[in-house]
Amino acid sequence: MEEITSVNNELVKETAKLQQKKYRDLKDSFLLEGYKSIEEAVKAGVEIEYVFVNSKALNKYDFCNCRIISTNEAILKKIASTESAPESIAVAKQIHNSIDELKNANRIILLEGIKDLGNLGTIIRTSSAFGADGIILYGDCADLYNPKCVRSTVGNLWKTTIAEVKDIRVLEKHFANHKRIATLPLSDNLLKNFKPSEKMLIMFGSEADGLSKELIDFSTDSLKIEMKGDVESLNLAVSCAVVMYTVM
Amino acid sequence: MEEITSVNNELVKETAKLQQKKYRDLKDSFLLEGYKSIEEAVKAGVEIEYVFVNSKALNKYDFCNCRIISTNEAILKKIASTESAPESIAVAKQIHNSIDELKNANRIILLEGIKDLGNLGTIIRTSSAFGADGIILYGDCADLYNPKCVRSTVGNLWKTTIAEVKDIRVLEKHFANHKRIATLPLSDNLLKNFKPSEKMLIMFGSEADGLSKELIDFSTDSLKIEMKGDVESLNLAVSCAVVMYTVM
Repeated sequence: MEEITSVNNELVKETAKLQQKKYRDLKDSFLLEGYKSIEEAVKAGVEIEYVFVNSKALNKYDFCNCRIISTNEAILKKIASTESAPESIAVAKQIHNSIDELKNANRIILLEGIKDLGNLGTIIRTSSAFGADGIILYGDCADLYNPKCVRSTVGNLWKTTIAEVKDIRVLEKHFANHKRIATLPLSDNLLKNFKPSEKMLIMFGSEADGLSKELIDFSTDSLKIEMKGDVESLNLAVSCAVVMYTVM
Repeated sequence: MEEITSVNNELVKETAKLQQKKYRDLKDSFLLEGYKSIEEAVKAGVEIEYVFVNSKALNKYDFCNCRIISTNEAILKKIASTESAPESIAVAKQIHNSIDELKNANRIILLEGIKDLGNLGTIIRTSSAFGADGIILYGDCADLYNPKCVRSTVGNLWKTTIAEVKDIRVLEKHFANHKRIATLPLSDNLLKNFKPSEKMLIMFGSEADGLSKELIDFSTDSLKIEMKGDVESLNLAVSCAVVMYTVM
């Protein structure tokens, strides 16, 4: 069994760098923190490069079937993005879905310019639970492979196809036959009256700016969630969840 | 106009301490960060003690009608709990609702042992939007007046009556005539088939532990949110939102 016990070890330093986006992009890999997260990734067939495991918990990691490194809490804390050290941290290969994989999907969530990592992870988790077929990250969005986002998905990062799109023409090409629903606080169409279609692309703007004119122009329908008069808006992950539960 | 420009000023130091629970408890006050948060608090009649305002934005704060202190970004950053300095920070008096105020309420959310500040704030925001009449924090919960929670409510902290309860006998005394619904992943009753009553107490356990046996024993009904088979659970704020939207 390989063992690393010095926080100054080169592999430890290299691995800790994966907290930063530029290193994740460079290596095309990312961090999985904790048992549950690693277990779900292995089940889903995600390629794991190696795992640092607290020496006390080694016997639980036979399922990983990859390079396992016995280590200590100080090293796990150095690599982790959390304040307390997780039991284990794996380095895994990123998965990149193409938008082509979604063109025949029926129920798609589009998130425009989403920045909040916790919200993004939570929406991915919710999409899995409520059976969305895919998620499109449109425009300048937060990094899916940021550890905080990965953590917020609670092991559901690989159950939904997620594609990134920057250009409206890509959407126009692939989703011409979908009902394209803009969620808008000023829409006249209440969610409770909404009639779902087989093929739907449901679009959510960022918390700060809402949907862009470009996407509103691209939409065929709109809807809003009913709220009491004196509340301006909902948290984005909450809005997505309520819409998904109701229409899917 | 009073002006403070030194980060070593005593009032600045005193105010920054309100980031910590023990000082909030001692002073029975808390921090409101940013224009929107302060504006909503003033509208709701929350008692504001004083406000630090960036000197460039002073003219926007006439509505406060309290002690206004002109200051700079360095001081606002020192007091704030966020990485970037907000435009303003107010110190306000905490509000303590008694459980008696909720005994005749119809639609109440109970959160047991909730620890995540973002979730707590988001649930408060959602409760306002979907018209819950009250929230009970049961057992050992996160501090409502933590700046992160206050921020997550996005100005909705005072629109719902929130009471803290530690003892099951208090619940037994006040809510004997309510339908008491335990949200449980193993319930046989699906949310979509749930028939709301006029008087409901809907109970949610913590993300880590779920509902305690004590509260399950106290319940008269149960429900679960339908999910795809391979997803274990939803984020707590998401679960609350979906249940509230559906039954309220």
